[in-house]
Formats: sequence, C-alpha cells, structure tokens
Amino acid sequence: MPFVRIFVSPQFDAAAVRAIADGVHDAMSTTIDVPAADRFQVVTRQAPDEMIWDRTYLGVDRSDRAVFVNVTLAAGRSDDKKRALYAAIVGNLEARAQVRPADVFIVLTETTRANFSFGNGEMQYVPAGTSA
Amino acid sequence: MPFVRIFVSPQFDAAAVRAIADGVHDAMSTTIDVPAADRFQVVTRQAPDEMIWDRTYLGVDRSDRAVFVNVTLAAGRSDDKKRALYAAIVGNLEARAQVRPADVFIVLTETTRANFSFGNGEMQYVPAGTSA
Amino acid sequence: MPFVRIFVSPQFDAAAVRAIADGVHDAMSTTIDVPAADRFQVVTRQAPDEMIWDRTYLGVDRSDRAVFVNVTLAAGRSDDKKRALYAAIVGNLEARAQVRPADVFIVLTETTRANFSFGNGEMQYVPAGTSA
Repeated sequence: MPFVRIFVSPQFDAAAVRAIADGVHDAMSTTIDVPAADRFQVVTRQAPDEMIWDRTYLGVDRSDRAVFVNVTLAAGRSDDKKRALYAAIVGNLEARAQVRPADVFIVLTETTRANFSFGNGEMQYVPAGTSA
Repeated sequence: MPFVRIFVSPQFDAAAVRAIADGVHDAMSTTIDVPAADRFQVVTRQAPDEMIWDRTYLGVDRSDRAVFVNVTLAAGRSDDKKRALYAAIVGNLEARAQVRPADVFIVLTETTRANFSFGNGEMQYVPAGTSA
Repeated sequence: MPFVRIFVSPQFDAAAVRAIADGVHDAMSTTIDVPAADRFQVVTRQAPDEMIWDRTYLGVDRSDRAVFVNVTLAAGRSDDKKRALYAAIVGNLEARAQVRPADVFIVLTETTRANFSFGNGEMQYVPAGTSA
C-alpha cells in the first residue's frame, strides 16, 4: 500500500535510478511486510537548483549527490521496524547504486488503510460493510 | 481546501490531462462537499521510467497507462464518503479521458484545517481568536 | 526536520526560485524554531497547464503567478505558531522575490519525529533505546 516518492540528484543515470527504486521497494518488503506486488512509486530527477539540502546537519557528512525518499503508508509500524526500514534502504542503495548512506534522507507520512484505493474506485483494504 | 497532486503516464495528451484534473476536482465537489472554487492542483506528466506500478496487485488488471492521485485534505470524512469519492474519480476519468478504472491509484493524506493557508499569509479556516 | 516541497509558476527565473526557497526556509527558522542547517527542499517549476488554482476562493485575489508550499514536519506547533509561519513566508517571498501575498498557498502535513532519517539509515531524533 505504500505510495513512494523518490527525488534524486541529476548525476544518477537511468540504471542507477531503477536500482534506487528497486532498493527502496525491496527494503520495505524485507522490513515492514510490504508485499512484493504492492508497489506504486514516482521517481523524479531534479535539476541541480531544484533540490536543496544542508551538507552537515546533525553531523552527517553529505555530498552533492542526494536521494530523498518520501513514503506514505498506513500508520502502525513500531519505531524498531522503522529503524530497520531506514537501515535497509541505505544498505540497498549503497550496494546497488553506490549511493553514500549519508546522502539518503527519508520521511514517512502515516495515513490509514481506508485512505488507499488500488484501482476500480474501490477501498480494497476496508470493504463496505466492514470497519477500519 | 484539498491540495491535489496528480501523476500521469506520458501517453495522455494535454486535453486528457486537463480532463483528468477536472474530473478529480468535480468528484470531490459532488461527494465530499468541496466547493467548486476550492481548487489547488499540481499535475505532472512522468517519463516512462519515473512511474512504477505493479500490474496485478490485489487482482486489479492494470495497463501501461496509469494515473496516481494524492489528495491532502482535512480529516473527518467517513469511510462511506471516501468510497463515494473513489468511485466518482474513476467514473469521471473513464467518461472524460478514457482512463481505465483499474489504472487509477488514489491515496488520501489527512491533515487539519489549521494546516492550510489560502493566501495573504492567513489561516483562513481558523482565524486568530477562534480554536480549531 | 521539515521536508519542504515548493511548486512555482514558470514565470519565476532562477534567482527568484532561489529567493523563494530561501524565504520559506528562513521563515521556518524565525517562527517555528527550525535550525538554519535543518534544510531539505525540493522546488519544481511547473508548466502552465500543470498547476491549476482558483483565482478568487475565499475572496483572495490571486494572479497568474502562484507559489504552492507543502511542508511535512513533526506535529505539535500551536495555531499561533503556524499563523506566524504563514505570515513570515509570504512576507519573505514578497520582499525577496516580488511574490504577491495573495499568490502563496501553504499546506502543512504533520508527522512524528520517528518518521525522519537524516542520513546513514539512522532515526536521529529517536535513537534506539529511547522512546518517541
């Protein structure tokens, strides 16, 4: 059910962009029980002046190549699950697309299961006659 | 008050994109009482490799033309209202832009009325001296 | 910690876009205690038909040049703090980039401190062994 937005610096080529998208998705499958087929992502390459980030906030040593990940998902994951997710995302991005772990900024936006429709105008996770 | 983000596959032409944007807005007016003049939308055409979605998740038969709709709105609509909204969006998009109902993915993000400013730096829905 | 999305009409040039991004960030620093170094923004110029807004909703006199600002931040700011933020954003944008106050639409999306990772796959605001 997650809706994933990924924003990348322009230095990443098409293969790297795909590897990043795959890496984010696989991290969700392995750490927070997202089914492999539950994938809805928008990835955008930003011009250099369209993506602005501090290079040192909280003592993290960021470079000029950044990846921002914004995941909208149902609320309810524990902090430990979220920590595992963050670690898995940066691990996958480093292994598959040579993204430095310091360069990955992640934000989760939590919503409810009733707030998703996966096609046909239906509320698949909360069918009529049931409750959320 | 809703802030609407729409992401579309590159196959849709300018007229279809406008029809999709209109269809989403009109669906909100008819099902969840959004005033006709309360319209703030960003629609973006994505390159083929910038939009990634599963073709079969939950048994929905998706094609290579997708529309993702992400609506940020004040919390409080019932599940039945949301079901009516989802159905109206896909109905409008099919009738006006030949979008297959299976190809429409919708996510709502709920927030509060104090979280909107409609211009002039004011919190129009919760004026100073009142409470949310 | 805020993640800031800014959408602008195509009339703004590169210098104006930068001034708008700076103005939004500085408004957050002066009104809601965001550290100067806590900056993560994505700014996108939209084609004329990709950004749609009503010109008169709530009696605000909007022009053909718009700026939409969407801030994802931890919940907890008071309504008065948010009012100060809205006023500071439009003040900065008018002073630095000649944006008319009426043309600035702002939406806040509130989330939790555990929902941010600022690099290295860590949950910097809620370290393991603490609670949110």
